[in-house]
Amino acid sequence: MVRRSTREIKVGGVAIGGGAPVSVQTMCNRDPHDEAALVSQVSSCAELGADIVRLTVPDVEAAAVLGRVRRATGVPLVADIHFDWRCALASIEAGADALRLNPGNIGGPERVREVARAAKAKGVPIRVGVNGGSLERDIVAKYGGGGDAKFAAPPEALVESALRHVALLENEGFRDIAISVKASDVPRTLAAYRLLAGKCDCPLHLGVTEAGTFVPGTVRSSVALGILLSEGIGDTIRVSLTDEPEKEVQVGVEILRSLGMRDPGPHVTSCPTCGRTKADVFRVAAEVQAALERIYRRAGKGRPFPRVAVMGCVVNGPGEAKAADIALCGGDGVFLVYDHGRHVETVPESRAVDAVLARVRGCCGE
Amino acid sequence: MVRRSTREIKVGGVAIGGGAPVSVQTMCNRDPHDEAALVSQVSSCAELGADIVRLTVPDVEAAAVLGRVRRATGVPLVADIHFDWRCALASIEAGADALRLNPGNIGGPERVREVARAAKAKGVPIRVGVNGGSLERDIVAKYGGGGDAKFAAPPEALVESALRHVALLENEGFRDIAISVKASDVPRTLAAYRLLAGKCDCPLHLGVTEAGTFVPGTVRSSVALGILLSEGIGDTIRVSLTDEPEKEVQVGVEILRSLGMRDPGPHVTSCPTCGRTKADVFRVAAEVQAALERIYRRAGKGRPFPRVAVMGCVVNGPGEAKAADIALCGGDGVFLVYDHGRHVETVPESRAVDAVLARVRGCCGE
Repeated sequence: MVRRSTREIKVGGVAIGGGAPVSVQTMCNRDPHDEAALVSQVSSCAELGADIVRLTVPDVEAAAVLGRVRRATGVPLVADIHFDWRCALASIEAGADALRLNPGNIGGPERVREVARAAKAKGVPIRVGVNGGSLERDIVAKYGGGGDAKFAAPPEALVESALRHVALLENEGFRDIAISVKASDVPRTLAAYRLLAGKCDCPLHLGVTEAGTFVPGTVRSSVALGILLSEGIGDTIRVSLTDEPEKEVQVGVEILRSLGMRDPGPHVTSCPTCGRTKADVFRVAAEVQAALERIYRRAGKGRPFPRVAVMGCVVNGPGEAKAADIALCGGDGVFLVYDHGRHVETVPESRAVDAVLARVRGCCGE
Repeated sequence: MVRRSTREIKVGGVAIGGGAPVSVQTMCNRDPHDEAALVSQVSSCAELGADIVRLTVPDVEAAAVLGRVRRATGVPLVADIHFDWRCALASIEAGADALRLNPGNIGGPERVREVARAAKAKGVPIRVGVNGGSLERDIVAKYGGGGDAKFAAPPEALVESALRHVALLENEGFRDIAISVKASDVPRTLAAYRLLAGKCDCPLHLGVTEAGTFVPGTVRSSVALGILLSEGIGDTIRVSLTDEPEKEVQVGVEILRSLGMRDPGPHVTSCPTCGRTKADVFRVAAEVQAALERIYRRAGKGRPFPRVAVMGCVVNGPGEAKAADIALCGGDGVFLVYDHGRHVETVPESRAVDAVLARVRGCCGE
């Protein structure tokens, strides 16, 4: 797969575009004035794999809080700005690593110029973030949404809006720009990003906006981002879920891992079970997965991590064991343990998790 | 998107291939001799959207149970056969709508002939289902997995195995064949199906095998199946999760809905919330989603169902309200209610769910 060629921007130490690895973002949902809550949430998101975290900055005080959270956590932070250019300036001043701001919404060319200058002086990039739900009135009208008509923004409207905002910045000589064009369903999201990808060389921030609660939101985001990334489109991603940001990070990381675009981490191959299964594969697989995530975060990051399989029976079990470093294959109340494809011991079900973990710790040199 | 052109097979009343809508499958994990448990599980899966359900048939008694479950539920059932051709014959006799069987594994050409004849006589199609974990020894050896070497089957090996099984059936004049070539990770799964798609006109059953526990399994399946379906590949799908089959069905249905390949059902657009949010969007969105699924299953199937949005604030709220039939937009402890884009009332948070549901029931004529 050939990735689309883009200019590179830097959010703190994280490169976006220019061939850099695709990064994972999320957004805090805590009170923007509650420093302790934000530090805690930013840290837990980073621990789970978030490379960049966004905080809303609805007022100038929140910008100062953002600066303190940045210094406390060391995590690159994006200030989310709507309408008020003073919040943008205050965020740059306070140490934000990037802004998310649509320059057409901040009150005219003078303010755009002022923000662009301040951002450029500090090397702070700007993401232009267009959503189907917040397009300019004239664009809505042009694409048939005037008056009382029901209106789901077509991809062309999202792209036109984004490029208009981008032009306002580029006219000021500001070029450190990423773009997002998020619709709330998969087909419009795909079409908008594909269209945009051919019209500029800015790195693209992918997402399905307002994707929904955990299960539908995870599926919609995985389908849309999976398709776009597999086409070489996309430089950073944010999964939007009506759920905690930690969940968004987990899903975002899994999307990249699934495509081989990130360190695979603790990949557990585990079977769905069927009427043949006589061991508690659900419990054992869940416990192994959770324990491996903990070991990985403590010790494994960036190093090759053993691949583990938890299988229910002999139909695919020994074959998947051969593809894994450590594997369990369920029998009647017992599990056969495989180490690099070889059957090395048989343990009662109650000891299966420990048997895997001991061998994984060995592989990791713990 | 142009779908790959395939021959059509029929599993009970459900067409697969030949341009038919992509169907959703799952597999029971109850004791294959426990008729009551199977009837209950098959029924709940069908209720959630499964078009076809598979049951393992490890012995001849289980075939008789399958027949009774089929008659009790009316749901098309596939008998999963490994190694024992007598189970295949007994399943056909008992009323299975299809077999999942790899003819190279059932003990020689006489048995293949007998099964193919019996299946043909009753109009029962066969899925050849190849997994990375259960390839023939000679194919494993050919592709470098002989002896103790660690071995993850390459896509070419999966396809070679599948076509060998298919040839055994076609040599008997049997052509009602679907094929799956499932690997346990996304890149190999994509490559195997893309390769196979160019080599035959059989309908394809898509899946990532042993995809893992709920979150990674959902992401891997959504990414892989989303990409293949968007390329026009795939005629029926099964999401494999180390979790209950009802969850597999939910994810499978959402994958198809997300791509516009199935009745969209109760699509809830809901925002992830941020530091600006002052209403409990998580709870309200989850309750609305769950209630809409119930209303949909009771009343809405096959009819246009209202699109609902649950938004946290005024940034994207009114815009998404315009794209929805009924919408909530959160304020400070209250929600504004929109009906077809117009603000019609403002309710306290405690009444928000009821306010949406009353209007949805109105739309559905309940």
